[in-house]
Amino acid sequence: MRIYDIILKKRYGEELTDEEIEFFVTNASKGDIENYQITALLMAICFNGMTERETATLTMCMARSGDIVDLSSIDGYTVDKHSTGGVGDKTTLIVAPIVAALGGKVAKMSGRGLGHTGGTVDKLESIEGFQTTLSGDAFLSQVNRIGLSVIGQSGDLAPADKKLYALRNDTATVDSIPLIASSIMSKKLAAGSKGIVLDVKTGSGAFMKSVEESVALAKAMVKIGKAAGRDTVAVITDMDIPLGNAVGNSLEVIEAVETLKGNGCEDLTTVCLELAANMLTLVTGKDKASCLEMAKGAIADGSALRKLREMVEAQGGNPTWIDNTELFPKAEFTYEIKAQADGYISFMNAEKIGVSSLLLGAGRNTNKDVLDFTAGIILNKKTGDKVMAGDVLATLYTNTESKIPAAAKKFNEALVISSDPVKKQPLIYLTVN
Amino acid sequence: MRIYDIILKKRYGEELTDEEIEFFVTNASKGDIENYQITALLMAICFNGMTERETATLTMCMARSGDIVDLSSIDGYTVDKHSTGGVGDKTTLIVAPIVAALGGKVAKMSGRGLGHTGGTVDKLESIEGFQTTLSGDAFLSQVNRIGLSVIGQSGDLAPADKKLYALRNDTATVDSIPLIASSIMSKKLAAGSKGIVLDVKTGSGAFMKSVEESVALAKAMVKIGKAAGRDTVAVITDMDIPLGNAVGNSLEVIEAVETLKGNGCEDLTTVCLELAANMLTLVTGKDKASCLEMAKGAIADGSALRKLREMVEAQGGNPTWIDNTELFPKAEFTYEIKAQADGYISFMNAEKIGVSSLLLGAGRNTNKDVLDFTAGIILNKKTGDKVMAGDVLATLYTNTESKIPAAAKKFNEALVISSDPVKKQPLIYLTVN
Repeated sequence: MRIYDIILKKRYGEELTDEEIEFFVTNASKGDIENYQITALLMAICFNGMTERETATLTMCMARSGDIVDLSSIDGYTVDKHSTGGVGDKTTLIVAPIVAALGGKVAKMSGRGLGHTGGTVDKLESIEGFQTTLSGDAFLSQVNRIGLSVIGQSGDLAPADKKLYALRNDTATVDSIPLIASSIMSKKLAAGSKGIVLDVKTGSGAFMKSVEESVALAKAMVKIGKAAGRDTVAVITDMDIPLGNAVGNSLEVIEAVETLKGNGCEDLTTVCLELAANMLTLVTGKDKASCLEMAKGAIADGSALRKLREMVEAQGGNPTWIDNTELFPKAEFTYEIKAQADGYISFMNAEKIGVSSLLLGAGRNTNKDVLDFTAGIILNKKTGDKVMAGDVLATLYTNTESKIPAAAKKFNEALVISSDPVKKQPLIYLTVN
Repeated sequence: MRIYDIILKKRYGEELTDEEIEFFVTNASKGDIENYQITALLMAICFNGMTERETATLTMCMARSGDIVDLSSIDGYTVDKHSTGGVGDKTTLIVAPIVAALGGKVAKMSGRGLGHTGGTVDKLESIEGFQTTLSGDAFLSQVNRIGLSVIGQSGDLAPADKKLYALRNDTATVDSIPLIASSIMSKKLAAGSKGIVLDVKTGSGAFMKSVEESVALAKAMVKIGKAAGRDTVAVITDMDIPLGNAVGNSLEVIEAVETLKGNGCEDLTTVCLELAANMLTLVTGKDKASCLEMAKGAIADGSALRKLREMVEAQGGNPTWIDNTELFPKAEFTYEIKAQADGYISFMNAEKIGVSSLLLGAGRNTNKDVLDFTAGIILNKKTGDKVMAGDVLATLYTNTESKIPAAAKKFNEALVISSDPVKKQPLIYLTVN
């Protein structure tokens, strides 16, 4: 078998066999295929796509290229959640405790932020003492004991995906549904949970800008998950507007705590309850409406908040910060963005708001950047809101005053204010299962 | 400017600017763009093509990436000829002397053979003493003195093309009209002649298997040549059948000499006269019919043969081998391929015949292979011919007896004999100018 012939087949739109895909992934991982041949094949896949079978095979081969996490020692139904990434997306901090409080076992590996989207691991590390690195045994025993652990990716999950992703990132071949779906799902399959709920974001702050693309990606991922014997559901949710009011690490943790206390804003609460309910349908086998009520109950009775506190304590964090969020350090500098005229916010470019937050110190341009946990943005107004000249639209937070002008400029670019009232967009589009 | 953005533009079918193409070629040449980014762009070009302007710019940039041969010291009209490669294609050995005998200045750099097609430089080296490496001064002064020199590629012509071609060859991206056209024409522009006649082969032994593709390639190349200020004409000729009766280095030189004596077979003579006439229209400005008569005259009066002899002598070769081709060494072993049944030859796969000749020792699989100049094939019958069981279809020649079985097997695979008479295909399809 020769990689040349595999590239040629895909270039001319033929379907690759399982053996050919396995040959490609195995030899690409080992460095036995030149990077310039890998990228030629990836570009041909961008043009000619992959069938469901090809995509599933690619995913399995990438999952098997490294460690597969063994969760069999966990007593109960393991359920994972993945978001395709967005701005202000702190749902894991809310959803995982709700599900764990109701009996689901959430053994979750999360990522760090890069570019305009934040990472759950960074957010958790803004809590004093919180450890995101645990040994495998400690991780499993914590999930068995309290039903919940969120750590950084450990071990060597799907290294083939890591290699392909780095090449795609340099060659404008990220944007391909079979390649995105296989990349995400290879890591989810390797992470070992029985149930997987995918939060596929759509809109200006998301990778998929249109609902149609998001549905196509969701379908591809659900098919892969099922083909691999996992219970898989995807929910398409809006990311045309940042989720919730807070963007930035400690600001988002504080908002998550408030949401678990029942004080969350409507959009964030709604999306979290929807995701939790979908996870609970897998855990309990009950219908979605019942699961939604259960999830609301776990907020109302404080059990979800207690679960978060338990996890923080178990992972070395200071639980009193959860009891009293005033303990989180505050940014030294704040800056208010004010409306220049009366009108309605007709559009917020969520990606630009994410970049503004990054410029304040809340995110990374490269892996080496050090985060300012206090930095970020609190939104006072969102798309559809009526504003009057002089109203505070948002407050920027940072410990580095010199970062404010560029961040404020970027924030202002993100907003469109029109004189006509604006219809709100849906928050949750549909469920794919 | 970033290569990433250039790849992205081409992936989404946008036209690249001249600055972007220049950035790509310059930095690819210098090694400042990763090979895996180069191949991603090349694959995107295979899918989305290039406009005439993009193709012309790519060609000029590749031509300028190395030496540009300066032929300004040559007194007269310099004219070059390029064939897209075929089996048994010894036309340069016949056409160049005809044109030089009639006043054209042919300062030609030729290649070596690789794979199933032969190279003019290898054929010339089968003549005792013939030197294909000359200093620049010796090359130019020979052309000024006798009107003709054929040498191997010297200097560093279009190194950017060399780099891209090697990558294309490994990534199934050879087969793209803008990439083929720019590759060929970058070398022709760098080689410096004022007039360029392109022999675009079509059929089973050629790179372009259909007439439509060949015409598209011819048009692309003629447009590039004209955009660069060169007089450029392309002729589409058949390569569904090997050209002439001889395949192999010294066998082809002998056939070329016979053709210059007026004893050539019809197909080879016709194609050579057509190419020579097209070159002469550029040199003399006369109409094609007159030029065809002039070319025939140069064979009839022996002036073209004398010109070949002059060149052989000027480049250190033994001219008596041209006077008497019996002086060429003979292969030690011969093997006759006989017809198994009565019928008509309905198809000859020229590429397979080329491979059969290679297997006998006449060609190279890799750059390091040493040639057996005596090896090759003489065809007694060609497509359309009636054959009787037991007729000799061809004779194989080699100095290594053990090579015969595989070569004979490959030769037999190349032939189809049917019971119905077969209509001959055209030899010359059309001229593009």
